[in-house]
Amino acid sequence: MSQTFEVEKTCPRTGARAGVIITSHGLVPTPVFMPVGSQATVKALTPDDLRDVGATIVLSNAYHLYLRPGVHVIEKMGGLHRFMGWSGPMLTDSGGYQIFSLASLRRVDDRGVIFRSHIDGSEHSLTPEDAIELQRRMGADIIMVLDECPPYTKDVGQVRQAMERTHKWAERCRRVARDEEQQVFGIVQGGVFADLRRESSEYLTSLDFAGYAIGGLSLGEGKEETLAMVEETVACLPAAKPRYLMGVGSPEDLVENVARGVDLFDSALPTRTARNGALFTDKGRLNIRNARYRELDEAIEPGCDCYTCQRFSVAYLNHLFRSSELLAYRLATIHNLRFVMRLMGRMRQAIVEGGFGDFREGFLAEYRTTDEDVRLAQKQRWLERAVRVRDECDSTEEP
Amino acid sequence: MSQTFEVEKTCPRTGARAGVIITSHGLVPTPVFMPVGSQATVKALTPDDLRDVGATIVLSNAYHLYLRPGVHVIEKMGGLHRFMGWSGPMLTDSGGYQIFSLASLRRVDDRGVIFRSHIDGSEHSLTPEDAIELQRRMGADIIMVLDECPPYTKDVGQVRQAMERTHKWAERCRRVARDEEQQVFGIVQGGVFADLRRESSEYLTSLDFAGYAIGGLSLGEGKEETLAMVEETVACLPAAKPRYLMGVGSPEDLVENVARGVDLFDSALPTRTARNGALFTDKGRLNIRNARYRELDEAIEPGCDCYTCQRFSVAYLNHLFRSSELLAYRLATIHNLRFVMRLMGRMRQAIVEGGFGDFREGFLAEYRTTDEDVRLAQKQRWLERAVRVRDECDSTEEP
Repeated sequence: MSQTFEVEKTCPRTGARAGVIITSHGLVPTPVFMPVGSQATVKALTPDDLRDVGATIVLSNAYHLYLRPGVHVIEKMGGLHRFMGWSGPMLTDSGGYQIFSLASLRRVDDRGVIFRSHIDGSEHSLTPEDAIELQRRMGADIIMVLDECPPYTKDVGQVRQAMERTHKWAERCRRVARDEEQQVFGIVQGGVFADLRRESSEYLTSLDFAGYAIGGLSLGEGKEETLAMVEETVACLPAAKPRYLMGVGSPEDLVENVARGVDLFDSALPTRTARNGALFTDKGRLNIRNARYRELDEAIEPGCDCYTCQRFSVAYLNHLFRSSELLAYRLATIHNLRFVMRLMGRMRQAIVEGGFGDFREGFLAEYRTTDEDVRLAQKQRWLERAVRVRDECDSTEEP
Repeated sequence: MSQTFEVEKTCPRTGARAGVIITSHGLVPTPVFMPVGSQATVKALTPDDLRDVGATIVLSNAYHLYLRPGVHVIEKMGGLHRFMGWSGPMLTDSGGYQIFSLASLRRVDDRGVIFRSHIDGSEHSLTPEDAIELQRRMGADIIMVLDECPPYTKDVGQVRQAMERTHKWAERCRRVARDEEQQVFGIVQGGVFADLRRESSEYLTSLDFAGYAIGGLSLGEGKEETLAMVEETVACLPAAKPRYLMGVGSPEDLVENVARGVDLFDSALPTRTARNGALFTDKGRLNIRNARYRELDEAIEPGCDCYTCQRFSVAYLNHLFRSSELLAYRLATIHNLRFVMRLMGRMRQAIVEGGFGDFREGFLAEYRTTDEDVRLAQKQRWLERAVRVRDECDSTEEP
């Protein structure tokens, strides 16, 4: 396969880099944030909305789509791009994380996994080969290997076992035939253990994937631990390949991890928090439901070029949220995604122009991050909710 | 006030007519359907979406907006047009219907009404004068008088009492000062009693309103009864003024009532049924959740020029509805509203070209209407739900 990634510029003070991923559906300038469209839709948005906020690549999820509507439907509709009306680059996650979090697991062994659907309780089996084949049939530009993603734990034995299985599966995934233009990314595991992270990075690098994801983080460990693991992993990955940190998407985390040399990100956080009424500004999140916004005749972020800020006042958004109006979710999602896209663009420009170090300091000095304890408590609630959703056999993630 | 309505053409075979309402925010060609944006938003749509589907006038609701966010907020934001971002003509309902259906009524007498908010149970009083003043302050182009709208009943005494009070209130509303360019419409009551309908029409006509609404119908009576009352009422209203049938919006009802000389309509039916997955086609409604649509690679209505039909397949919409994805509600609402707007446009053109009678016959021969018993049962469920909503003090109308 021809070259699919190019590094244009690396920051002299940090590990940040500007590059471009080449896919048959278009170029993806990096660092990049991928909006999450698990069920073949980024919640509340059309593909045109995604273009308008500046998305260049969208993530979808093989686990969700395998269960509903089924890969045969997507294939019959001409592939995932045509099915959902998105003509740009697309990455699909294998479903490893979802199977180990959302689904009710029946058996995991070296052959693969047997699980029950979180939608209707039906039983399914999935091998690493199946995971690649499903994504191939859906027509993804970037395909993720099947990995075993254990929950956050201090049990090194459990994490080593999952890592070693992930490695065996990665090797099998690597051998599965796929279309010429489809890239496959490996996934580094190893929990919060530096030696495992190094071992996993080196092993996967030996398999020569088109890119490398860092999995198994942002699952309840502290922020310092996340950053330390990212550093360990990035140090062992080849500079010539893209690096993808899975499940990270708060503005402050994006900045800190770009600084450590990460190129791709995905997370439901910007869109989920938007639907909850938490809107991003350069000063931090604001809670749009707050009574102080009831009569404020300003944009969420004065100067923001998103559709929502261009057209509607904070007072109107406050009213829509208080009235539980559907329009609230779309307008808030547009703003948060545009904020993140602009942030990625500002970082890329700073890297190219040699000022990323200053940008990072300036941004973090201004941006009031969510308190670490609050953040972990929120994360915990979210993870528990995912389990609850699984137990209730109900996938709806609506606010 | 200068002329605000003009009849361009009247159908020689039916009572249908093509005209235009003149407002300071633009012209409204009639017959016209007004999408319902009770809480300063047509559910799931932006003002740009409304323009795109061809809406020329939007309805909002003084009762809802008085309670939340409050008229002072809307006034401070520069009026309802600016608050919700809709620059075209706007009609506001006085809230009479909502007070008598959604709110918990404390007292009604000739002075006005005292009711409890369905949102938080707070007590409010409203006189006919207040109702006009609220709408004036919001900046509506067309203002509705406060009426007493009793539920469907065979008790002629009850209906006469409500009608007589509506007349007294109308007279007081007529005298309230408002901006030069704001038009006020009276509302005919009289239930399902032909003599009361005639009496009400004649009395209101004597007060010389800019237009006349037909209220108190489509509340559970049979379709034949509705049409008979419309005929009685229209016959007694002046030909030179617009006639507005409140709460009617199914495709077949629009056609039948345009044939009887009605010029304006509003109803939450097209948008509400859209959110329930019932989509309009020239052959009738289809239930998009039906398994037969799971793999159908076609538009909802081949030939439809709406955004949804231009971009997405029935299979994708089926998937969005089955997955309870927010995008489903927006795409379905766009289609149903566009269908209704195109229907109104086709009727207007047929009237102008002299072929309305044929159009009506052709449309009704093709359009499979919802069975009358099913329709009444649905209406009954909806009315009961409104009472339940009131009792639960919760205004959310989300699907």
